[in-house]
Amino acid sequence: MESLLEPPHIVVSRLPLYLRCLTYMAAEGHKITSSKELAEKLTISSAQIRKDLSHFGEFGKQGMGYDIATLMEQLRSILHVNREWPVVLIGAGDLGHALVYTSTLIERGFRIAAIFDNSPVKIGQEWQHIAIQGIQEMPHTVRSENFQIAILATPPQEAQSVADAAAEAGIKAILNYAPITLTVPESVRVEYMDPVIHLQRMTFYI
Amino acid sequence: MESLLEPPHIVVSRLPLYLRCLTYMAAEGHKITSSKELAEKLTISSAQIRKDLSHFGEFGKQGMGYDIATLMEQLRSILHVNREWPVVLIGAGDLGHALVYTSTLIERGFRIAAIFDNSPVKIGQEWQHIAIQGIQEMPHTVRSENFQIAILATPPQEAQSVADAAAEAGIKAILNYAPITLTVPESVRVEYMDPVIHLQRMTFYI
Repeated sequence: MESLLEPPHIVVSRLPLYLRCLTYMAAEGHKITSSKELAEKLTISSAQIRKDLSHFGEFGKQGMGYDIATLMEQLRSILHVNREWPVVLIGAGDLGHALVYTSTLIERGFRIAAIFDNSPVKIGQEWQHIAIQGIQEMPHTVRSENFQIAILATPPQEAQSVADAAAEAGIKAILNYAPITLTVPESVRVEYMDPVIHLQRMTFYI
Repeated sequence: MESLLEPPHIVVSRLPLYLRCLTYMAAEGHKITSSKELAEKLTISSAQIRKDLSHFGEFGKQGMGYDIATLMEQLRSILHVNREWPVVLIGAGDLGHALVYTSTLIERGFRIAAIFDNSPVKIGQEWQHIAIQGIQEMPHTVRSENFQIAILATPPQEAQSVADAAAEAGIKAILNYAPITLTVPESVRVEYMDPVIHLQRMTFYI
């Protein structure tokens, strides 16, 4: 699936952390940073940071540090987030509500553009001026609007069938809050948000 | 920090995925499974699964598969989740509300036992019969109840100072929903839940 020219996924997976850190530094009024300063803030070694960035060309000059605005722009371009992405939310429960009503997504370039649920009580309600549609409308809406990203916030029993329908309709990236591992075609990426998995990764060490 | 006898963190990080998968299989009435069946459900190779489990002793017999109930019990014991963990929630916003009112945590052994916020409007409210306390009460409550796990769901500007206070009070594990990288003492573990980081890990490939 990945070409030989693509950097390893582990490298790609760190780029959003660099971008987030730079964004905060810029908001605090900083103009220039260094791999050493980033390393301290991110608890990633400065050598690792330099090596990760070197996959994508030359950034900054030896001994001169990085221009924060320039590096942010380059990272946004590499990650394809130098644009706003519309996102489909599937599942209008408490968690979906929190995602729609907090500013985390929209401030960082992801706009929830459609909401689907299977509850007759929910369908037709408006959240932030977006009317909740029936789940059976999802494939048509995804196709006609060419949506590519879905957030799955359904109960676990429904997640796989909803993911199947989303992939079939053309969704290429699923952020899955349902606590199950999804099986999807190779052309679809899935990332997972399950707090219990992360909690258990820590209780091992307590 | 880690002893030589400890398995690599990457191995530990997969164990909760095995446990979650086994839990669903048990709920569906299955008694026995195999590394091959787990591999298909988890999209992790069966060789990897066998190797991961071998770090912790002998599980199952060659050609006989795994007894699901036994393997679940052993994984729970390894991960220290063969008990209920009280968890402190810091930040009573939309996301905190969703965490308190959905069953994900409690069904899987993590009980929100105290809630803290700095908003006078929130303090004194009860969520699921838990009175929201002022953030300044947090260190005392953590110490007196010997709480070890905190979920941080504050705005990013407050997250580091709250994490400092939590670590100082004895918290050993922080699940951080605030979109910043925290700096904590070596004795404290942090795991992160930031949907935008995961979305950007996928837009790279679209």
